[in-house]
Amino acid sequence: MPVLSMDNVNPNVRDMEYAVRGPIVARATQLEKDLLAGANKPFSKVLKANIGDCHATGQSPNTFIRRVVALCSAPDLIDKVDYPEDVKQRARRILAGCRGSSVGSYSASPGIDVIRQDIAQYITDRDGGIPSSPDDIILCTGASDGIKTMLTMLMTGKGGNERAGIMIPVPQYPLYSATLTEYNAYSIPYYLNEESHWGLDTSELKRAISAAKGKCIPRAICVINPGNPTGQVLTKQNIQDIIKFAKEENLMVLADEVYQHNIYGAGCQFFSFKKVLMEMDDPYNKMELASFMSASKGFMGECGFRGGYSEVINLQPDVKACLLKSISAKLCPPILGQVVMDCIVNPPKPGDPSYDCFKKEKDEVLAQLKEKAKIVTELFNSIEGITCNEVQGAMYAFPRIFIPQKAVDEAKAEGKSPDSFYCFKLLESTGICTVPGSGFGEKEGTYHFRITILPQIEEIKAVLELFKQFHVSFMERYK
Amino acid sequence: MPVLSMDNVNPNVRDMEYAVRGPIVARATQLEKDLLAGANKPFSKVLKANIGDCHATGQSPNTFIRRVVALCSAPDLIDKVDYPEDVKQRARRILAGCRGSSVGSYSASPGIDVIRQDIAQYITDRDGGIPSSPDDIILCTGASDGIKTMLTMLMTGKGGNERAGIMIPVPQYPLYSATLTEYNAYSIPYYLNEESHWGLDTSELKRAISAAKGKCIPRAICVINPGNPTGQVLTKQNIQDIIKFAKEENLMVLADEVYQHNIYGAGCQFFSFKKVLMEMDDPYNKMELASFMSASKGFMGECGFRGGYSEVINLQPDVKACLLKSISAKLCPPILGQVVMDCIVNPPKPGDPSYDCFKKEKDEVLAQLKEKAKIVTELFNSIEGITCNEVQGAMYAFPRIFIPQKAVDEAKAEGKSPDSFYCFKLLESTGICTVPGSGFGEKEGTYHFRITILPQIEEIKAVLELFKQFHVSFMERYK
Repeated sequence: MPVLSMDNVNPNVRDMEYAVRGPIVARATQLEKDLLAGANKPFSKVLKANIGDCHATGQSPNTFIRRVVALCSAPDLIDKVDYPEDVKQRARRILAGCRGSSVGSYSASPGIDVIRQDIAQYITDRDGGIPSSPDDIILCTGASDGIKTMLTMLMTGKGGNERAGIMIPVPQYPLYSATLTEYNAYSIPYYLNEESHWGLDTSELKRAISAAKGKCIPRAICVINPGNPTGQVLTKQNIQDIIKFAKEENLMVLADEVYQHNIYGAGCQFFSFKKVLMEMDDPYNKMELASFMSASKGFMGECGFRGGYSEVINLQPDVKACLLKSISAKLCPPILGQVVMDCIVNPPKPGDPSYDCFKKEKDEVLAQLKEKAKIVTELFNSIEGITCNEVQGAMYAFPRIFIPQKAVDEAKAEGKSPDSFYCFKLLESTGICTVPGSGFGEKEGTYHFRITILPQIEEIKAVLELFKQFHVSFMERYK
Repeated sequence: MPVLSMDNVNPNVRDMEYAVRGPIVARATQLEKDLLAGANKPFSKVLKANIGDCHATGQSPNTFIRRVVALCSAPDLIDKVDYPEDVKQRARRILAGCRGSSVGSYSASPGIDVIRQDIAQYITDRDGGIPSSPDDIILCTGASDGIKTMLTMLMTGKGGNERAGIMIPVPQYPLYSATLTEYNAYSIPYYLNEESHWGLDTSELKRAISAAKGKCIPRAICVINPGNPTGQVLTKQNIQDIIKFAKEENLMVLADEVYQHNIYGAGCQFFSFKKVLMEMDDPYNKMELASFMSASKGFMGECGFRGGYSEVINLQPDVKACLLKSISAKLCPPILGQVVMDCIVNPPKPGDPSYDCFKKEKDEVLAQLKEKAKIVTELFNSIEGITCNEVQGAMYAFPRIFIPQKAVDEAKAEGKSPDSFYCFKLLESTGICTVPGSGFGEKEGTYHFRITILPQIEEIKAVLELFKQFHVSFMERYK
């Protein structure tokens, strides 16, 4: 008799789903292996547009970041290679902040002191001088780790109606739903309004929390800005409204701001929850807030380093001590992920030898993303049976597909959601791997998929053409 | 009203303790800062002997490992630096296994394929040809992450008497007790026998599980070999007995084998649970087993990279799929931690250009650890009021201190455990930071502390002399 079977394995793990690496991605990986083994398919390459993995889709690493990482890893190179002086200085400065001057030693659990200082300075500058304290900065193993840490703190340790209730947007990045399932928490979904550019209405927030009353203890509201998978950018007014709502309901705000560098829409601007909250009067500027940032997105896309940080403000001192204790058993986030984060928040300045190269690379990546956001939005809206809100920010389009009833019926017969059925057909006939909208949540009776805008411009044009052909023949077949 | 207060924060987090980074370490860090600020103390330096942090205490990184990491980080260096050809080949091979040939892309959640293959080969060779499959290898963010992942799977999702029961040694590395508290699981402590070199008797295992019956659903037994904090190395017979016990009680075995390279005792040999189990007859060789390994310990001590892996065998296929799903939302372990792990399991071979240097560095570190294990054991046993089992393996001594009643009383008056009282006094008068035995668990009425054997040889001799003076005066004062 095995110890573990599907009947007795942790039911919260059994029930959890994480669509971004779900069944369709397993199938795509299999197809990749089949192709390598010489299988005959209607396509020669699998394009993994399911995940925001910049370097996997052809983006080059930022030179400054990688040089600093290399010198921190092999300090004997500092005096041997012809890297610019600011690269060498940065490596020396970070190594001086590491115990034993080695990136192989543990740091304090919230991270290396000089890096926490640099992050606080970055936030202060970003928010027009509103001060950030290094003591409020906690580095983490990618933003996911920081988010899970904060959610853990908010759990009640109780079941049934006394479970913690966490408000999450629908559609949402499924880390949230997966984590809440794993923690046996109660998800309080609030719907973004597709008809108004995935806007966030406070009336909907009120409806959502009312519906959850008596079923859980509401503790926090998660907001993703810019939106993932939905690509909208919140206005300052919108953020103020959310903060006021959270205050009324005594909720902590968890602001997922990992795409803060990825703003493309005309007239769109990134406002941090921290800045908006601190500019509001008492009692709002005393509210507990956690904001999350990552090394994996933005212009750098260094996913593999697992770098990230959270800024957590206005916690009670004893709760803050408890938070720091809670991360101590994990020892520390990867040091080189911290190093990458440092290069991002404290890049070369005008006049530094690496400045021109850094700026050129950063600007190029962001300009291309902006162009791709436009191309993708326009293309999807040019196809019959598809509408797509403008990709104002982040790295994804989330088009709505109007799936014919005949296809809906066939999907149901196969036990698939209609958009999952659609995405599998897309994969099998074109090699394009996307994520069905049902994995993010969507309004009953609407169907979507998420596709990254990351492939290089010529490739994304080819992909969209291939997609269009598939869509037309799909609609033809099931009309 | 704050959202989070100590009354409503997650009670499992509130109650959790992780002594290795507990209050005494916070105090040591403060003392370091005070010294830097010019404070006058009876010592000029704080020695953090609380944690197995090799590079922090003067060990140099392994050259081969760091060169490979540097080239993977900045591939343009491959054709520029005069590193040996095997370093360059390794970097090229790993980069070929990364999406987009970048360590900045995500890997599959269980890790990079070629690295999983190298690990499986290492295990196969280590275990005298008993095969290991890459499909059973899951890389993780340090062994801690792998252990938490496996414990998560074993939770029942229920409370009270239906909680999962996990057997853990006492004394134990407090990751286990901390995680079980966080997960609201039931710890089933079994005591190691200090009188017989911290031996593990099956009669004690039977006593322990009997005492827990009716209070939980026993699911697994954790064994740390070589022992942490206790430094013993299990015999093959001992491991067989544990496996038989686990089979009788239908428990999964979780084998913490992160110190498998750290064997010093005369006549001691490391046997993996995997090898012993696979060499036993049916049904033992069908048992579910997870074994954990780390990049942080051994001869390399690359703690900051957060590299590690687990080998998980004999799981039901659907449970295995569930395990893989459970790690998908974390995306992947840090790529450079995976790279370090690869260099450890697949080091340069005789004839390779880096072989001589690699072997010399590895042998030196392990020879010095062996010498230090001997020095430390002998010194502690030479002091009145202290006994210490031989440090046969791992990186710590766990001496027993016989604390006079007067000191016990004073400790209690201060609300401290007697060994915590002792360790704080040690810190304040010498700057030596150790961890009180109570943080690992110990038999009622016995007192210990854990000290690493990592400082360089001359330093450790000086430290032990300083310790001896402190101990004599402590005993004098409280006799």
